[in-house]
Amino acid sequence: MSAWVTGANGFIGRHLVRELAGVGRTVHGVGHGALDPAEARALGLQTWINGEVDAANLSALAATHGLPSQIFHLAGGSSVGLSIARPFEDFSRTVTSTARLLEWLRSFAPESRLIVASSAAVYGADHAGPIAESAALAPMSPYGHHKLMMEQLCRSYAQSFGLHCTVVRLFSVYGPNLRKQLLWDICSRLSSEERSLNLGGTGAEIRDWTDVRDVVRLLVCAAEEVQQEDFRLINGGSGRGTSVAEIAGGLIRNWGSSTVVRYSGVARPGDPASLLADDGRLRDMNFDWRLPLERGLADYVEWFRSQARA
Amino acid sequence: MSAWVTGANGFIGRHLVRELAGVGRTVHGVGHGALDPAEARALGLQTWINGEVDAANLSALAATHGLPSQIFHLAGGSSVGLSIARPFEDFSRTVTSTARLLEWLRSFAPESRLIVASSAAVYGADHAGPIAESAALAPMSPYGHHKLMMEQLCRSYAQSFGLHCTVVRLFSVYGPNLRKQLLWDICSRLSSEERSLNLGGTGAEIRDWTDVRDVVRLLVCAAEEVQQEDFRLINGGSGRGTSVAEIAGGLIRNWGSSTVVRYSGVARPGDPASLLADDGRLRDMNFDWRLPLERGLADYVEWFRSQARA
Repeated sequence: MSAWVTGANGFIGRHLVRELAGVGRTVHGVGHGALDPAEARALGLQTWINGEVDAANLSALAATHGLPSQIFHLAGGSSVGLSIARPFEDFSRTVTSTARLLEWLRSFAPESRLIVASSAAVYGADHAGPIAESAALAPMSPYGHHKLMMEQLCRSYAQSFGLHCTVVRLFSVYGPNLRKQLLWDICSRLSSEERSLNLGGTGAEIRDWTDVRDVVRLLVCAAEEVQQEDFRLINGGSGRGTSVAEIAGGLIRNWGSSTVVRYSGVARPGDPASLLADDGRLRDMNFDWRLPLERGLADYVEWFRSQARA
Repeated sequence: MSAWVTGANGFIGRHLVRELAGVGRTVHGVGHGALDPAEARALGLQTWINGEVDAANLSALAATHGLPSQIFHLAGGSSVGLSIARPFEDFSRTVTSTARLLEWLRSFAPESRLIVASSAAVYGADHAGPIAESAALAPMSPYGHHKLMMEQLCRSYAQSFGLHCTVVRLFSVYGPNLRKQLLWDICSRLSSEERSLNLGGTGAEIRDWTDVRDVVRLLVCAAEEVQQEDFRLINGGSGRGTSVAEIAGGLIRNWGSSTVVRYSGVARPGDPASLLADDGRLRDMNFDWRLPLERGLADYVEWFRSQARA
């Protein structure tokens, strides 16, 4: 069975390709980033097209390798900050690329299963406690707005043209090879042996942390499930909330450091106090999260140190 | 004061240009459709650029005429049927053009007032009675989904970049020069002297009919109003519901015909039983609808006959 991955050269994309290849799929990818054929093969990719998600590249893949059974659509903007600095670029990466992909699927591969990675950013900052998929949607950034527009386009093509689409709203995904965001920042500071670590916010911000290796199993699982409706939304979170202070503490413990963390105490504007999944739909799927946070943090620290040595 | 109109060569656009020129504005337009300079001037346009709503054309207008005080954004898909036949084209016309316009405004004219024509199609088919702007949104076609995505992009740019944007959701706009949809179809049949007139649906479908000459006054009025918030949504409907059967009866009466209308009795899939505005926000603005339906239908019949003779 053949699977295509857009954005296969990104953080989640690379893990997903490895997972798919590991369960015996033939994997082809398209998206941005140079990968020579040896690198692509080492990753698990039989083909890599470094370019836009557009009809020309998708048809080129199909001409050589046939139509895919499943397409995992991970291409898109990946940074709130960049979406504010360059909103049109984020729009193009997230929304226009999805429009091109859906139109190509409608025309050439309407039976393929489409799995789309969206984000909990669509929920915005006003939710307390677990957030169900049906909760109010109020994105706070172009990044979140564009993800929501992407979801809506998927819903439209499923509704009008019968495409089979599952949107997975990812929460706080971390893990080996993630070179940005909270865990990266903390480890970078620990690595430069700062005596004390000053972080923005209060430390009490709750997030739903998920290890990328579990997340890619979830994406594969969502693609396998019998799908009753053409369009389906799933929260890709664990339903367990952990504060920023607990994450910092866990990393410091695993590092064997005695660094003290201080928080500015000032909440960052637009930064949600809590972003936690209602995981009811995942429980209905019997999906099991296998990597508890303590293990995930230990692995992250180990990876960080190994890449710092390299 | 200078106003720009995108899609100025469309049905509503042409009426809007006339209205703006009539109240003393200098009007420039960009959008699709050939207009020679004499035609453009006769319409009330000082400049017409036949092309995409994109940075090149917008900057060309600004270089010659300075920045606009107001931009009326009417360019976009205008047919549910075409949006199903060619969804990517509808997406490009409605969503991508808006993305380009917003990005240009952010970069070059963040103080301009933007008035965007959206559609009651964003509400979908499940509402009974007057629909408030806060009602659930469930578009039934690519056309409606793309209008909703367009609204969301406007909200995003207003929220993140302080653009001043008013979205007006138009209901069933009719009037002189509209050469499609219900009124056109009925008059065309009356004109071919059909003995009886067979229409789809039940005749009981309720719509909020508004004469285009009132609608363009509303758009101008919305642009003038003091705006407290950067982003504002307004239903552009009258709050009065009229059935398809009443419309057909009114046209036949004005025509002086004795044609009998028959309905298939079968509701068209996706066709809302009722699409009626809650007009609370327009009442707060003290906007007055001046052309009652009976007058509007009489004018439409008169226009239809005059153009048929021409």
